[in-house]
Amino acid sequence: MKLTILGCYAATPRTLTNPTSQVLEIKNRLFLIDCGEGTQVQLRKNKIKFSKINQIFISHLHGDHFFGLIGLISTFSLLNRNNDLHIYGPKGIKEIIKLQLRLSNSWPNFGLHFHELENKESEVIYEDDKVLVKTIPLKHRVYTNGFLFQEKVEERKLNIAAVQEYEIERCYYQNIKNGKDIYLEDGTLIPNEELTFDPEKPKSYAFCSDTSYNETMLPIIENADVLYHEATFLQSEENLASKTMHSTAIEAATIAQKAQVKQLILGHYSTRYDSIDLFKQEAETVFSNVLLADDELTFDL
Amino acid sequence: MKLTILGCYAATPRTLTNPTSQVLEIKNRLFLIDCGEGTQVQLRKNKIKFSKINQIFISHLHGDHFFGLIGLISTFSLLNRNNDLHIYGPKGIKEIIKLQLRLSNSWPNFGLHFHELENKESEVIYEDDKVLVKTIPLKHRVYTNGFLFQEKVEERKLNIAAVQEYEIERCYYQNIKNGKDIYLEDGTLIPNEELTFDPEKPKSYAFCSDTSYNETMLPIIENADVLYHEATFLQSEENLASKTMHSTAIEAATIAQKAQVKQLILGHYSTRYDSIDLFKQEAETVFSNVLLADDELTFDL
Repeated sequence: MKLTILGCYAATPRTLTNPTSQVLEIKNRLFLIDCGEGTQVQLRKNKIKFSKINQIFISHLHGDHFFGLIGLISTFSLLNRNNDLHIYGPKGIKEIIKLQLRLSNSWPNFGLHFHELENKESEVIYEDDKVLVKTIPLKHRVYTNGFLFQEKVEERKLNIAAVQEYEIERCYYQNIKNGKDIYLEDGTLIPNEELTFDPEKPKSYAFCSDTSYNETMLPIIENADVLYHEATFLQSEENLASKTMHSTAIEAATIAQKAQVKQLILGHYSTRYDSIDLFKQEAETVFSNVLLADDELTFDL
Repeated sequence: MKLTILGCYAATPRTLTNPTSQVLEIKNRLFLIDCGEGTQVQLRKNKIKFSKINQIFISHLHGDHFFGLIGLISTFSLLNRNNDLHIYGPKGIKEIIKLQLRLSNSWPNFGLHFHELENKESEVIYEDDKVLVKTIPLKHRVYTNGFLFQEKVEERKLNIAAVQEYEIERCYYQNIKNGKDIYLEDGTLIPNEELTFDPEKPKSYAFCSDTSYNETMLPIIENADVLYHEATFLQSEENLASKTMHSTAIEAATIAQKAQVKQLILGHYSTRYDSIDLFKQEAETVFSNVLLADDELTFDL
């Protein structure tokens, strides 16, 4: 699992910082999460292949999380993309994009599919053979979802030496990988654990931005390997965080600690701060494994 | 008159080039012309004060000319702008912006006024005591206008030495500046030209992008001091220019020559070319005074 931060600053794009967008690579799929203005240029800078992005998840309809989407779709179109593109985001996103494509008389040639979200409870919104994506309902000034990306449990790994020793025929391999025990021709039962190794433990990544301090997300993100949680403000601006329905670094860390996640990545910093180091310092008073997101930083998870 | 190019490349923003946007400073007013994605960052880079921009002119609803507008308006709002903002652009621009502001629940506190254009004939769309702006109907794949910015003729300049010599009272100064002759108390007529100097010659700037070769604009832009004309393609891609309703460098230069403008600035280069030098070379075969726009270049006109 690899996370590339394209932008992780709040509110407005600036000369050296970008609004929210990140690419999660998981099981050889690229998921784009949020798409602030300038995302397509950040994708180019980070040498991420446009054609590998087939799913885009939009947390909410504040500009710093989606104003880059129409430009990205248009560029996909200009580059003669063929693959279907799936957009997951709050109700309204379809109307916004369709209106602009219609007025610019530039409907794309590839399939453009919108999956509009309205549910206030967590739901599975994407699933394939390797990965599952659930919403994490957040509390913000407009309807907002975080997203939990979960690798699926893989089939068990065949112990080649063991199956060869027992002279088990190939046609039984899939059953064994599915966890079945095997009877030899003489009727002997070989338990599955003698024939297989445990698969790799599936990983999970929770993206939570933007949100006020919100314990209702805890059961959904519990034990996640990595939590990206917004920390727009430091403790000194606690009142502002509460007023604008954002979180402080300490609140993000408290969520991480209560959900018993393994690692916390902070982001969505207000542009009022000259340095982001204090976010880590404050969060570490509550939770020990804290990393700071920054634009164009890549995390191997 | 000062022109700052924020972006002058066609189609998509890239790591080092930006889509169309420029700032025309004229008589201490800043007019923003077109607003591709990333314009707000380009304004910051070029240290242009956001609060001085009160009029934005959008040529047409292709993304590389307006996708940055919603972000710029939102940023104005976040920065607690007070001044009214006037947007001049094709019918539809209001719906696009209003929909996004409504869905993001972030209607600005400043006055946001839309002046939607549908007229296929040139019309005056802005006028104050110093400047007048007219549309230049262009021929493109969607409804498109260029814009002619004209300084108004100023009042005549008082010849202080002369009015003092004739002991003319101050209360007559405005009449003299307005071009009136004056009778002294003894009945002597002093013709205006003895009391005044000619004002500076009013300048004009014509912005024409995007358009195919289009002679119907000639009477509108005739004798303009500066013409910015799109030149998306070189002569080798002439067919592509005609197919996509864009112009070649030679076509832009032919318009400049037929309209007898003083200076031609080329821009809106297709991103297929590694160097833009050939645009100047080709244009100069037809018209001698050619400049090449480039991002972050400023022209003192």
